[in-house]
Amino acid sequence: MPLPAPTPGSGKRLRLPDLAMRHWLADYGRRDLADDLVAGMITAILLVPQSLAYAMLAGLPPQAGLYASMLPPILYAALGTSRTLAVGPVAVAALLVASTLGSRGVTDPQQALIHGVILAFEVGALLFVLGLLRAGKLMNFLSHPVLSGFTTGAALVIVISQIKHLTGIPATGQEAPALLAQLMAGVGQTKPMTLMLGLGAMGFLWLSGAPLGRLLRRFRVPERAALLMGKSAPLAVVLSGTALVAWGEWHIHHGVAVVGALAVGLPHIDLSFLGAGGPWLDLLPAAALIALIGYVESVSVAKVLANRRRQRVDPDQELIALGVANLGAAFTGAMPVAGGFSRTVVNDTAGARTPLAGVFTAILVGLAALYLTPLFSYMPQAILAAIIVVAVLNLVDVAALRQAWRYDRTDAGALLATLAGVVALGVERGLLLGLALSLLLFIWRAGHPHIARVGQVPGTEHFRNIQRHAVETWPEILLVRVDESLCFANAGPVEDFILQAIREKPETRHVVLIASAVNAIDTSALDMLLGLIHALRSLDVTLHLAEVKGPVMDRLQRVDLPGQLAPGRIFLHTHEAVRMLTDQATLSRDSSRHAGQERA
Amino acid sequence: MPLPAPTPGSGKRLRLPDLAMRHWLADYGRRDLADDLVAGMITAILLVPQSLAYAMLAGLPPQAGLYASMLPPILYAALGTSRTLAVGPVAVAALLVASTLGSRGVTDPQQALIHGVILAFEVGALLFVLGLLRAGKLMNFLSHPVLSGFTTGAALVIVISQIKHLTGIPATGQEAPALLAQLMAGVGQTKPMTLMLGLGAMGFLWLSGAPLGRLLRRFRVPERAALLMGKSAPLAVVLSGTALVAWGEWHIHHGVAVVGALAVGLPHIDLSFLGAGGPWLDLLPAAALIALIGYVESVSVAKVLANRRRQRVDPDQELIALGVANLGAAFTGAMPVAGGFSRTVVNDTAGARTPLAGVFTAILVGLAALYLTPLFSYMPQAILAAIIVVAVLNLVDVAALRQAWRYDRTDAGALLATLAGVVALGVERGLLLGLALSLLLFIWRAGHPHIARVGQVPGTEHFRNIQRHAVETWPEILLVRVDESLCFANAGPVEDFILQAIREKPETRHVVLIASAVNAIDTSALDMLLGLIHALRSLDVTLHLAEVKGPVMDRLQRVDLPGQLAPGRIFLHTHEAVRMLTDQATLSRDSSRHAGQERA
Repeated sequence: MPLPAPTPGSGKRLRLPDLAMRHWLADYGRRDLADDLVAGMITAILLVPQSLAYAMLAGLPPQAGLYASMLPPILYAALGTSRTLAVGPVAVAALLVASTLGSRGVTDPQQALIHGVILAFEVGALLFVLGLLRAGKLMNFLSHPVLSGFTTGAALVIVISQIKHLTGIPATGQEAPALLAQLMAGVGQTKPMTLMLGLGAMGFLWLSGAPLGRLLRRFRVPERAALLMGKSAPLAVVLSGTALVAWGEWHIHHGVAVVGALAVGLPHIDLSFLGAGGPWLDLLPAAALIALIGYVESVSVAKVLANRRRQRVDPDQELIALGVANLGAAFTGAMPVAGGFSRTVVNDTAGARTPLAGVFTAILVGLAALYLTPLFSYMPQAILAAIIVVAVLNLVDVAALRQAWRYDRTDAGALLATLAGVVALGVERGLLLGLALSLLLFIWRAGHPHIARVGQVPGTEHFRNIQRHAVETWPEILLVRVDESLCFANAGPVEDFILQAIREKPETRHVVLIASAVNAIDTSALDMLLGLIHALRSLDVTLHLAEVKGPVMDRLQRVDLPGQLAPGRIFLHTHEAVRMLTDQATLSRDSSRHAGQERA
Repeated sequence: MPLPAPTPGSGKRLRLPDLAMRHWLADYGRRDLADDLVAGMITAILLVPQSLAYAMLAGLPPQAGLYASMLPPILYAALGTSRTLAVGPVAVAALLVASTLGSRGVTDPQQALIHGVILAFEVGALLFVLGLLRAGKLMNFLSHPVLSGFTTGAALVIVISQIKHLTGIPATGQEAPALLAQLMAGVGQTKPMTLMLGLGAMGFLWLSGAPLGRLLRRFRVPERAALLMGKSAPLAVVLSGTALVAWGEWHIHHGVAVVGALAVGLPHIDLSFLGAGGPWLDLLPAAALIALIGYVESVSVAKVLANRRRQRVDPDQELIALGVANLGAAFTGAMPVAGGFSRTVVNDTAGARTPLAGVFTAILVGLAALYLTPLFSYMPQAILAAIIVVAVLNLVDVAALRQAWRYDRTDAGALLATLAGVVALGVERGLLLGLALSLLLFIWRAGHPHIARVGQVPGTEHFRNIQRHAVETWPEILLVRVDESLCFANAGPVEDFILQAIREKPETRHVVLIASAVNAIDTSALDMLLGLIHALRSLDVTLHLAEVKGPVMDRLQRVDLPGQLAPGRIFLHTHEAVRMLTDQATLSRDSSRHAGQERA
């Protein structure tokens, strides 16, 4: 049987998909409908330009982003347990798709789309199967500093990848360092009108953020209206930029790159990718990474928002819902999807009450796909790049670094190493580096337990570190407290500490190991204890334990540790151990002399 | 600054090599000399045939084993901190060399020797540099179940690899499964005289072990004489087997494979391998594995024996000593060396007092190399295989498996998985599998903390699990105790537990998190606490902490957690928290009603 007690709800049976919508659809009211409609509209106005921008970031044709905003959120609405998670294309997943395409040298749009769709299918299948297996807890194994370093690093990589669109400098490099070098070398080829469009759009988007919010609050504009105005900025920028290009024919006269004419229309089920003979197995590691990052981002934001409303997000059902949403993306020729962090917050702030808001968003994006595609002929890529850059700058988390630096330098180091790894080595290798570092750090800490020799605070039953307090000790008794569970990583150091203490204090006849902070003892540490008993016995010293916790004691009894300890004992309290052992002092005198002779 | 307090002695400066022999040479006496001479002789009699056998196991010419028993133990004697560690060729390192040669398809003896010598050089360089860096603690990160599974698996692989020598069945496979299949298919080609020699030698060696020991004890033969008789068995078997083959010319008439004529002589410094253009980089991973396993085996046995004598083994100086010993092996054309487990026990039991015993052993092996080589022409490989098989069967550790099975099924699972991995996938991949498993298991356990809702034992200041004891609770106060350090792996489960408890008990106004078993809080868990404070606040619930340990508190103060908690507090004792919060009950009544309305 495993060490930990089984956590409630983590039964061994498969998790069956649950039509979670029945929970909120039953008592859905008119006011819910009105709220969901408004929230759905505000989110859609933000989502249409973002869908185009993230498709461009991923290196896919525009419909891969638009379609990702249609069927997937509708499927999530039926199955998801979060009421407000906005599912669709997201920046980090788009970057991972771009990095996968880049590392495989895929540039042909049709080939790129097949790769993107296969990735979406694999992401969906992985999440769905993990959901059936109730593996929602897996997300707990990504440490915050690593996640934060990864996200900030990915945001920087995304910004670097968009500079070529913002400036018009030609660049083909994939990894951030190579790309930066190309951009520096080509700085003379900057296209002035492209740069102006890009910088102008970024300036407008920045102004429409916090500065506009402050202004509107000063004039007491109601919150939802203010949100609508702020979140319309990307659409306004796209429309006015497109109008400018169309009016001046800048794409012809000034070389401004545009999305280009494309009939998008509504998505239809297309399973042809299944037979397209794509590199299914080769794409699997990238798909696993997109699934992990997308899932963690989705559930993190869903949980924060659900907690505020006393609602519950079920991590296993979320795996299933996000899995089905990605399968839906694949079947309609779209890129992988996840719950976007900032878009979900917008949806929540806009007053969404149920996932029906997401359905309304999907319908509005569908209308845009039907009627706005003629605009694509003149839509400048620089504007989309500006939208991407302003959106991902929100992901740069300086506060997390500052806090980690103050709280724990090693965690801050893991954060910085992950960040640097993502920028210098690429997103996948950077993340793997971070994961490896956080595991090593974890073991390293367990391998450096706090161990103290303790003595009795005079006149009390309390025992404290002899280096910090004026306490009473006894020459024949060594009291040692270990403030950590005993495991393979620290079994050696604990043994060394005790043996070293005995070498320094050779009159010791009894060692009492105080286990008040020992929550578990693994097999390696058990071996260490058994070895220590014998090593001490050959030095004529007896090992005792004190304050062993119930579950630890149960396990020790299975291998008869109490019997192996004898004549050593397991005391309930340290003061009891001291009382008993000091009473025995005269008894142990003889054996003490014997041991002294042996050493001579 | 890292979480753990720096361990004494782990300074940041480089560890300089120490001529450790000065510690024992200063007061070396005549009785020491007599004891060391006898022990050195007994060990040499065991070592000569083992050196030949392990060279054969490694797939190297005989002198690679004999030379490994000459200069390396002398260098170790000068630098090592263990008094009795017997350094020389060992079975597991030989297997790893064989596996490396096999996977690279090296069969030419001269090429094989160059590979073996490069491996010895790399092992030596790695250990030496790790020693300078004071990395002796690294050995703590190999868990006992994984090490035990690896050793037992390696022993089985070694036995399987020797069947061809014991039976004369021709087989060329490298991995154990392929080899077994070949042996089964070729069972009809068994050579009767070879089989007879092999089985006869194994039977004799087995009888000269425990059964002979029992017999000699019954006749009160002194311990050292009994040991000499028992440990002479391999030499006796080799000599009589060689005599039989020479007398009957079995190598001609019955196809008995022999070592073959070879002028060995004394080793000389030969640096030609440095310029031989071998695959240095490709061999590095294998060298790292040999270094790790050899070091852990050496230090484990050295520590056990030193503890019995109140002596100390310095893990960092051992890295340096074993590193120099391996460099010495490389410079004299020998295979990688380590401290052998059983040979060290023999040396210790034979009465060795200082590493000078190892020097005497080396001299005796040198005499054997000078004068016994003519015997090689008739020395049957089946006899050497029998010596290997009987020696490595000691490494099969059924007791460790039985104990792990009783104590902790997951550790037993890790042991069995490593064992099966070594046999089925090969030694390197099996070990890597075991290492990965033990890390995952470690994190998995941290991710499943014991969390309990507690209440007050009436009339006391003690608090116990409400599911196990009849305790007093209060409707507005939730007391939660977590029996584990808080880290990224369990931050999610702890948060979920508390939020779930509040959903089940919506009248809760105060949550007290009892941190008496929390030895550390990492950055991820700090983020969780900060998020929890806000999530609870939006539910009109206040979070408090109790019984926070000193070092944890120091760290929390750096990020002003006490300020963030307010109006929540950090109580010294749980009973103090309960007294204060129940006094406040009337105050919290109002907010309680307010929250009730919001939920309605």
